[in-house]
Amino acid sequence: MENFIAYNPVTLHFGRNILSTLGSTLKEYGNRVLLVYGKGSVKKSGLYDRIMQDLKSQGFEVCEYGGIRSNPVIEDVDAAAALGRDRRVDVILAVGGGSVIDSSKIIAVAIPTSDPAWDFFTGKVKPVSAIPLVTVLTLAATGTEMNPFAVVSNHALGQKSAFGSPLTFPKHSFLDPEFTLTVPRDYTAYGIADLIAHCFEAWFGVGETTLTDRFVLSIVKEAMEYGPKLLEDLDNYKYREKIMFAATMALNGMTMYGRSTGDWGVHSAGHCLSLLYDVPHGASLTIIYPAWMRRFENQVSGRISQLGSGLFDEALTAGQSIDRIEAFFKSLGCPTRLSDMNIQGELRRPIYDSMVHNKVNGANVKMKEGDYSGLIELFL
Amino acid sequence: MENFIAYNPVTLHFGRNILSTLGSTLKEYGNRVLLVYGKGSVKKSGLYDRIMQDLKSQGFEVCEYGGIRSNPVIEDVDAAAALGRDRRVDVILAVGGGSVIDSSKIIAVAIPTSDPAWDFFTGKVKPVSAIPLVTVLTLAATGTEMNPFAVVSNHALGQKSAFGSPLTFPKHSFLDPEFTLTVPRDYTAYGIADLIAHCFEAWFGVGETTLTDRFVLSIVKEAMEYGPKLLEDLDNYKYREKIMFAATMALNGMTMYGRSTGDWGVHSAGHCLSLLYDVPHGASLTIIYPAWMRRFENQVSGRISQLGSGLFDEALTAGQSIDRIEAFFKSLGCPTRLSDMNIQGELRRPIYDSMVHNKVNGANVKMKEGDYSGLIELFL
Repeated sequence: MENFIAYNPVTLHFGRNILSTLGSTLKEYGNRVLLVYGKGSVKKSGLYDRIMQDLKSQGFEVCEYGGIRSNPVIEDVDAAAALGRDRRVDVILAVGGGSVIDSSKIIAVAIPTSDPAWDFFTGKVKPVSAIPLVTVLTLAATGTEMNPFAVVSNHALGQKSAFGSPLTFPKHSFLDPEFTLTVPRDYTAYGIADLIAHCFEAWFGVGETTLTDRFVLSIVKEAMEYGPKLLEDLDNYKYREKIMFAATMALNGMTMYGRSTGDWGVHSAGHCLSLLYDVPHGASLTIIYPAWMRRFENQVSGRISQLGSGLFDEALTAGQSIDRIEAFFKSLGCPTRLSDMNIQGELRRPIYDSMVHNKVNGANVKMKEGDYSGLIELFL
Repeated sequence: MENFIAYNPVTLHFGRNILSTLGSTLKEYGNRVLLVYGKGSVKKSGLYDRIMQDLKSQGFEVCEYGGIRSNPVIEDVDAAAALGRDRRVDVILAVGGGSVIDSSKIIAVAIPTSDPAWDFFTGKVKPVSAIPLVTVLTLAATGTEMNPFAVVSNHALGQKSAFGSPLTFPKHSFLDPEFTLTVPRDYTAYGIADLIAHCFEAWFGVGETTLTDRFVLSIVKEAMEYGPKLLEDLDNYKYREKIMFAATMALNGMTMYGRSTGDWGVHSAGHCLSLLYDVPHGASLTIIYPAWMRRFENQVSGRISQLGSGLFDEALTAGQSIDRIEAFFKSLGCPTRLSDMNIQGELRRPIYDSMVHNKVNGANVKMKEGDYSGLIELFL
């Protein structure tokens, strides 16, 4: 095992009708709320009205910033932070999926400063304080609800980057599986793939730790058992519950105990596809993971074989494991080649350039620029 | 799943030479330290000298309370709290195993009051504030280093009771497997049994949760794989590391996600054996668990069979599962009958009376006084 520090101060509220304590939780922090949400699904589902009514009946003063895009952008973060600063909000309430919550983490540390929010991502500025953040999750996928990480794009610079600090943990996150019942089939599948990919990034990280490996296999096996069932039965609360819980566990720190870091090379490459072609995050991962395992099989064949054998409960070689994992992603209806996304035009050059520009790399499996073309060929 | 709230603010520092940041961590809270430890093993091992030297060289003002007994008693808690109150300590440093850390949790909330510490256990008084607690763990067993619970005996009342509140989480816990290398064989085995029993209490608790069940099986299987290896090779750092990590995971909250509570009936009965005969906590659990499963097999036969089948990777009936689990405890060198402890005299009556007096019961498998005698017969 590698030395590690486990620290996660998020209070997670999980289950049916869990929002009944949202108001009293927000009250701990004050009366002026900045409500952040996305491009309308919370309005369609009725959750927006329900929360607004609830907050107003309890006397909160609410200002709102809607329209956060999936694959969120830094301009929205700056604009929402300016609003929150202007209105001197006491607390941020993020209602949505990974994009909304990630954006809100940066809004929370940007409000107390006058610096452009992108400066946190470049390291030019370090956060010194944060407006408390409370989240209501509507998409089971990224695990952002129980970690300090945020990934945001800066299209002016052609970059998609991650940031996190002890100040960017949500204070409270409310997870009612009911709120994910309206997520369509494709995004449900991407969420399942995303949580599995998070486990894989841990699995291929730095540090040997047998118990944490068991936890990782537990989470992936849960997703592989109930993910397909959920996709056959999208209205099934019990399956939604299992996937929502698994997605949170997949990136709340426990898969990293005893590792100094995950690998994150596939995420790093996947961000380029999202930047260039707005490929949904989960889809970018199912496209790149099989290719990445094939490209770097010689460096991690033992780990690939151990992963496949653990997941499918039979002795598999690395090659067999990759085939089975790819077949599983396909069975979810996820793309495993970029061509599955029907993106037109010359692709090799822009992807290569974006990978160079974003310095795509993994912490364990090191990539050089010379590796990029071979990897790209395997997922086109 | 049952609704649940996950909250664990402990910062866990795990690994080799992890004490290098102990001083800077304590400094966050102030300069006056109350050092709490047990009956001398930390002096024998040299850890006491090392920490004292470290603290003094960094200018801390240290007062100390040594002599906390295994199966800790409320008198020590009151005396240590009086000392800490008198010296106006800023922070408590607990160096030891479960008894020292459990005692220190109550010392932490007792210092700011003038009430007898037992009043927390009876519910007569609720804690309102706490002196920050930092721990250095020297025994892999109870999991106390990453949870808010404390179990303390009151011999005057013939009671052994548990207490916990959000105020009784340690702020920081330092775990270096090196510090457990000197733990003798018997207590090493009791620690392994204790962590397994914690998992069992979760397993037999209230609430169905497939992923958490996988976590529970992961922890027990890790302990069953590496526990016996450690007992054959007590100086093996790697095995110490695995058991120390597993013990922390076994009672840090994650085995309870999706359950409203564990069962805790076996712990509740085990406390009576510790009270009456000073049976080590872990030993009391290996004595009672097989008997408890046999006595209440008809109520939880499905869960017992699922547990045994999951642990031994083959289809087992409830009866076969119990036999295999009992055989495993025996293989560790742990007692599975009270007679293995060589305790003399009439036993049935005092144990029965203590169970009645302590209202022994489980949250899921309810026990009535009429059940006690049958249970006792199975473990004598």
